[in-house]
Amino acid sequence: MSALEREYPANKKFKYQLMTTIDHEKKRAALEAVKYVRSGMTVGLGTGSTANLMIKELGRQVANGLNIIGVPSSEHTRKLALELHIPLISLAEAARIDLTIDGTDEFDPYLQLIKGGGGALLHEKILAYNSDLVIIIADSQKQVKRLGSFKLPIETIPLATQKIIQSLTQMQLQPTLRVKEGQNFITDEGNYILDLNIKHITNIPSLNNRLKEIPGIVETGLFLDLADIIIVGKGESIRTYKK
Amino acid sequence: MSALEREYPANKKFKYQLMTTIDHEKKRAALEAVKYVRSGMTVGLGTGSTANLMIKELGRQVANGLNIIGVPSSEHTRKLALELHIPLISLAEAARIDLTIDGTDEFDPYLQLIKGGGGALLHEKILAYNSDLVIIIADSQKQVKRLGSFKLPIETIPLATQKIIQSLTQMQLQPTLRVKEGQNFITDEGNYILDLNIKHITNIPSLNNRLKEIPGIVETGLFLDLADIIIVGKGESIRTYKK
Repeated sequence: MSALEREYPANKKFKYQLMTTIDHEKKRAALEAVKYVRSGMTVGLGTGSTANLMIKELGRQVANGLNIIGVPSSEHTRKLALELHIPLISLAEAARIDLTIDGTDEFDPYLQLIKGGGGALLHEKILAYNSDLVIIIADSQKQVKRLGSFKLPIETIPLATQKIIQSLTQMQLQPTLRVKEGQNFITDEGNYILDLNIKHITNIPSLNNRLKEIPGIVETGLFLDLADIIIVGKGESIRTYKK
Repeated sequence: MSALEREYPANKKFKYQLMTTIDHEKKRAALEAVKYVRSGMTVGLGTGSTANLMIKELGRQVANGLNIIGVPSSEHTRKLALELHIPLISLAEAARIDLTIDGTDEFDPYLQLIKGGGGALLHEKILAYNSDLVIIIADSQKQVKRLGSFKLPIETIPLATQKIIQSLTQMQLQPTLRVKEGQNFITDEGNYILDLNIKHITNIPSLNNRLKEIPGIVETGLFLDLADIIIVGKGESIRTYKK
């Protein structure tokens, strides 16, 4: 028990309740988003804790007769959907994707996103870009006035990563190589992730272009003009933002 | 023997002489570029038939005491340089690269290039971007008034390639998946190559930005504002273009 907890035992309880509220918000957003799914649709399945709740609801409805085909955005999501007996095809096989539902790490009032906390940003972005409709689901803590409290993940070719770190350091972006269990984090494509501090950046689209000009940066976690609808759980209610 | 050769036997001889002239032009450009190399330098080594001639000349000079470290842009170049006993480090290990010498598939009057005919465009671009000086060597047939007679190669994530082909077809770029010996061509990074028809494009930088906005396009063969010096063999002489 920490000194804080000894002094303020109620603090622990408060934290626990906060987590529960956020989980409820995620679930409310997930259930609302699934209402957009109709039988016959090909549905892109996002990755992360909020997307998991959506996939579980889809699995429940598939068991009750909903007829859809899922396109997973990560190995983790593929496994979860298989367990739930959701029929799947790969992105390469999907002729078209009617709808993708995914989570986010942050969204701003312009419906612009930072994604990639889970490291699946490349597949998630390919999926969103190729979907007729993109619905983002989130708890209320993901809503920000401006992007950048969350570090911006970018995916990099391993061979080029040291040079990219040099370039981004000069651009004052404080790149940090993502590490997992003592090893460099490796994406599904075999690349690295750098997390950047973009709190001080005012022109986000221009930053995105500058990042994409650097050879060896495969993709950024900035999802600009990709979200059509954002559904946010807010306490007991939900709010829907449309483009 | 073709009908043309039966009718015009001199044609075959003419073709042979043309090839010889081009080979001489490549060699002249390669030898001129190597004059920029000084002992102590770290030198990026390009890929392709013209780069090979430069690497052979560097190998000869290293045998005679030139003290350099090479940074290869492909597996093929790495092997050739090793055979010639040129000391090598990888791009990831190189603290800085003083000079890179590489070939090109086309260059225009603005020193803008199309590269990637050999499929090593990603590593070549990373190398050029991170070099203090970039010298391009070419025979006279690589010089064009405007880019686009050569098909533009782009490197794509396999999973996204079908969707990228759809997008680029809509953009009237006639994408063709590169095939080698009956199989999809695979780059050193495990990706595919699409070759695009950009003959009708007038705003090349804008095209490059649009291509890089498509998730799953890792890099394009447009080398814009990267070449500092272009050295061209022209018959018995050479011409040097500087930024």
